[in-house]
Amino acid sequence: MNTQKQTQVKGGSFILESHSSATTFTPEEFSEEQVMLRQSVTDFIQKEIEPNYAELDSAKAHQYADGLMKKVADLGFLSLGVEEQYGGYEADFTTQVALTEMTAQAYSFGLTIGVQTSIGIAPILFYGNEEQKQKYLPGLVSAEIKSCYCLTEPQSGSDANAARTKAVWDESKQQYMLNGQKMWITNSGYADIFIVFAKIEDDDLLSAFIVEKAFGGITLGEEEKKMGIKGSSTRQVFFNDVPIPAENLLGERQRGFKMALEVLNTGRIKMGASVMGIAKRAIKHGIDYAAERKQFGQSLNQFGAIQHKIGQMGALIYAMESMTYRASNDIDQKFDELIADGLEEAKAKYLSVADFAVECSLIKVYNTEAFDFIVDESLQIHGGMGFSSESKIETLYRDSRVNRIYEGTNEINRMLSVDMIFRKAMKGELDLMTAVQQAMAQKPHEISANKLIIPELYKVVENLKVLMLQLAGQVAEKFATTLSDEQEVTMALSDMMMQIYALESAIMRAEKNKDDKMTISFRIPACQILAFDAVRKCRIAAEEICLTLSKEPNTYDVYGFLNLPVFPLKDLRRELAQVMISNEGYFFSK
Amino acid sequence: MNTQKQTQVKGGSFILESHSSATTFTPEEFSEEQVMLRQSVTDFIQKEIEPNYAELDSAKAHQYADGLMKKVADLGFLSLGVEEQYGGYEADFTTQVALTEMTAQAYSFGLTIGVQTSIGIAPILFYGNEEQKQKYLPGLVSAEIKSCYCLTEPQSGSDANAARTKAVWDESKQQYMLNGQKMWITNSGYADIFIVFAKIEDDDLLSAFIVEKAFGGITLGEEEKKMGIKGSSTRQVFFNDVPIPAENLLGERQRGFKMALEVLNTGRIKMGASVMGIAKRAIKHGIDYAAERKQFGQSLNQFGAIQHKIGQMGALIYAMESMTYRASNDIDQKFDELIADGLEEAKAKYLSVADFAVECSLIKVYNTEAFDFIVDESLQIHGGMGFSSESKIETLYRDSRVNRIYEGTNEINRMLSVDMIFRKAMKGELDLMTAVQQAMAQKPHEISANKLIIPELYKVVENLKVLMLQLAGQVAEKFATTLSDEQEVTMALSDMMMQIYALESAIMRAEKNKDDKMTISFRIPACQILAFDAVRKCRIAAEEICLTLSKEPNTYDVYGFLNLPVFPLKDLRRELAQVMISNEGYFFSK
Repeated sequence: MNTQKQTQVKGGSFILESHSSATTFTPEEFSEEQVMLRQSVTDFIQKEIEPNYAELDSAKAHQYADGLMKKVADLGFLSLGVEEQYGGYEADFTTQVALTEMTAQAYSFGLTIGVQTSIGIAPILFYGNEEQKQKYLPGLVSAEIKSCYCLTEPQSGSDANAARTKAVWDESKQQYMLNGQKMWITNSGYADIFIVFAKIEDDDLLSAFIVEKAFGGITLGEEEKKMGIKGSSTRQVFFNDVPIPAENLLGERQRGFKMALEVLNTGRIKMGASVMGIAKRAIKHGIDYAAERKQFGQSLNQFGAIQHKIGQMGALIYAMESMTYRASNDIDQKFDELIADGLEEAKAKYLSVADFAVECSLIKVYNTEAFDFIVDESLQIHGGMGFSSESKIETLYRDSRVNRIYEGTNEINRMLSVDMIFRKAMKGELDLMTAVQQAMAQKPHEISANKLIIPELYKVVENLKVLMLQLAGQVAEKFATTLSDEQEVTMALSDMMMQIYALESAIMRAEKNKDDKMTISFRIPACQILAFDAVRKCRIAAEEICLTLSKEPNTYDVYGFLNLPVFPLKDLRRELAQVMISNEGYFFSK
Repeated sequence: MNTQKQTQVKGGSFILESHSSATTFTPEEFSEEQVMLRQSVTDFIQKEIEPNYAELDSAKAHQYADGLMKKVADLGFLSLGVEEQYGGYEADFTTQVALTEMTAQAYSFGLTIGVQTSIGIAPILFYGNEEQKQKYLPGLVSAEIKSCYCLTEPQSGSDANAARTKAVWDESKQQYMLNGQKMWITNSGYADIFIVFAKIEDDDLLSAFIVEKAFGGITLGEEEKKMGIKGSSTRQVFFNDVPIPAENLLGERQRGFKMALEVLNTGRIKMGASVMGIAKRAIKHGIDYAAERKQFGQSLNQFGAIQHKIGQMGALIYAMESMTYRASNDIDQKFDELIADGLEEAKAKYLSVADFAVECSLIKVYNTEAFDFIVDESLQIHGGMGFSSESKIETLYRDSRVNRIYEGTNEINRMLSVDMIFRKAMKGELDLMTAVQQAMAQKPHEISANKLIIPELYKVVENLKVLMLQLAGQVAEKFATTLSDEQEVTMALSDMMMQIYALESAIMRAEKNKDDKMTISFRIPACQILAFDAVRKCRIAAEEICLTLSKEPNTYDVYGFLNLPVFPLKDLRRELAQVMISNEGYFFSK
């Protein structure tokens, strides 16, 4: 255990140190049990969702939601991470993430499952007292109880703590009376319980409640008409003098805002996994269409322009997987450490995720944007057929657009990620200052394309980190007290962090699987493509930061740190495309 | 006339020479008549479309199409560019483009109008003989006759000449018998005539026909279910032994493929104008929402992250306008020249556009991609509300996606633009070789941010052109006979051309309006932002090309040519945003 503690990775620390690929986790290492579990989801989708796809992608889906949720519960998909005494199955966080990636592929119904297992169950699992857990968790796991998460209001979205929903204590009846309104509440149409964030009396901060529909006083708005995820229920929820027994306060009074954010950390990495699962589906649709469709006497997949798209999509999926499972495993390690330190299980669950909140935000942003790119390019491969509602890619395209908005817009998550890093530094959790000082003295490594490829790729990451630290130090110095007025700079710093995390994770994965034959034909080319992507995105971000600092980019040797050798970029993309075309989908699908 | 001939701009020549801003046209110069015409469209939309927006954005729209088209015809919107003797109004091409920008704002119905006035009328206007014009044009202008353009087939999209629809000559009846199937035919649900591209007998190349519905044998598929433009009619069209009188052959036999492409040139620049008009609407929705919506105690439009988006959108619209009207005016000048040279009017019409086919393709690609960026960012400003079908931005987002697909996918248009440049060079129309040779000897200009700003901005364009010519020369040399296998490189060259054209047009416009007070507060900052965009996009493209040539980018001093001084990029975006926020929309709306 001690050795493990020594190598335990700290959340956010990737920006200032390198982690050993030996202790990371890659999806190649899924256990047989994890593989079987994932396969069972695929089978379920094949059997229950695909044949009724059109109906389940419409408001008609609501009438099937109950029955389908029951089937999903019977298969055990709702139980992961819930302790056995509450009817659950104690799988680690990585297994939960691995399952989420698969259930998300059930189109709109994937979201119905996702909300139940993620933000629907987590608040009670994390903060419920023994009674609350006994009362609600078994039903949530068996789908007897459907849950929803009520945070957003018409006037409070990103500014969640501005919520106006209010609970007033009724001394005589020993209960709260809840009044207010929530908006965009997924699964609210079928929910039996509502996790409601509201202020008690004139509190400054939110508290949380478990509100049963049976308490009375809850009315629902009409189903929202949405661009996508049409089979998922989204309504407004109105609370009119809803009586809440005292014992249904969840966690401590005024800790609701913090709880809401902690739950969203879990939600964000799980959303990262969800879009990754759907992205694989989108890629497959594109590849299948390109194989089938002929123009100018050959299949579309023979054209360079199409292979360019397929190769780029493949590299992105590879990065998404690498960073998502790296983080989920780090969270599992942290959890073990906290348990070993004597923490109670529930607390260890949310604190282990909270420690990696930076990574969760970055994964949410990177994966949802990579997914949007993928679904857009795959649609483009379809030509006119992609615009037709007859094609599944059209559905995926419409469904995808909300991911950059909910569970924190990508703008908010970008700013949060940087803000959290600076807070960790101020709290002494990360020694950012020393790292910045060291970085200021560092010169760029020269990268060679012709030597051992993995060590050279790591040098690219090293260069990006040094540059990012240099710039972060300048930003912290210049805008010490006014950083909130400099959202553009904050977002640019976040872009650099995200590219670093993605690229490093991708290389660690190649290193860990270096003896596998697909490393030469897929993982390394993917890393090289990602290195170019990272350099390009970091270059734009670094320029934005320098210009805001009124400095020549050369002051910090931006271009020196971002220098890359001559890789045959076009051929690398075509190589990945070839692998994927013969594989009829993304190369790795354990 | 002679002076004018001297300064007459040649299509495609912008890549190797600079044009005087004195002879360009900018939307600031719209005549009073043009302004009134545009205003009348806005009034029409306000009165007839907005109140029934929801219905007109659905299949229900079809029942109103006839009546609305009649109103539009009465207002004269269908008549522009058609000679008076056929019931039209002889407006120049710029006026047609200026009108298209406005009519496109009528949501789905904008497309119904657009297809009639562009690819619906043009084939007859360009290639019809006197009898055909007399027979059809008056009805097309008055909306007694609705037209549609039938090119695409299930098996032939980008590869248009692979169409299988076939016309067989029936000697005894002196008529053709048409059989086949067309797909994705906009306006087909209401069409009275069908411009059909089909092969006669065993011809290698297509011919074109004017096919009346009344001839019999035409059946329509169901209305396609589409992601967007739901109020527009899109169906398959089946021809079963349709008898076509000999006189309804349009133009020469086997010239149909060329005609189809020539008509699409017109369609492309008009589509560029269309999406520009809709983009202005999208921006306004975003600005209005950002003004109204408060979070963290202030309006969204006070946040840097939001101003970043608004400023960037403004710069893009400015570029779209600048290049679109520059090209439309060049086409008008070319038309005048051809007429002065004694060409007949119809021929001068399509040849003048054909001369600028490169620019038409670039505008189609640049504008549709800028529009997609704008509609996506404006939706993002809306947060959750943007995903709701209650918001108009949601409609515009769904509507927008098809623009990168039809009238030639953006990939096809990119490749076409480069292909056409090389063809012009081979035909001796452009002296590309000399330009490349000169470019090889040139060194980058140094750009200063502190001197006269317009001349410095021109130096940026000059640098981009020299770099592009150097790379184009290398590409032509290395891939002389295999360029069709190098689509990635071709697309990268096209990206450079497009950025050059956009930036140069933007600067020319600033120069032409240099005494206007908005030049300092909007046009120049917009040009500076666009300069950064152009440099970044050209950098990626140039790197792609160099890597494919297996050369260090430094071999061609890529980074030297792309070097920019320290502009306060963030402040520039915020400046534009401020102008637009106080203007409640894009700054220029004559």
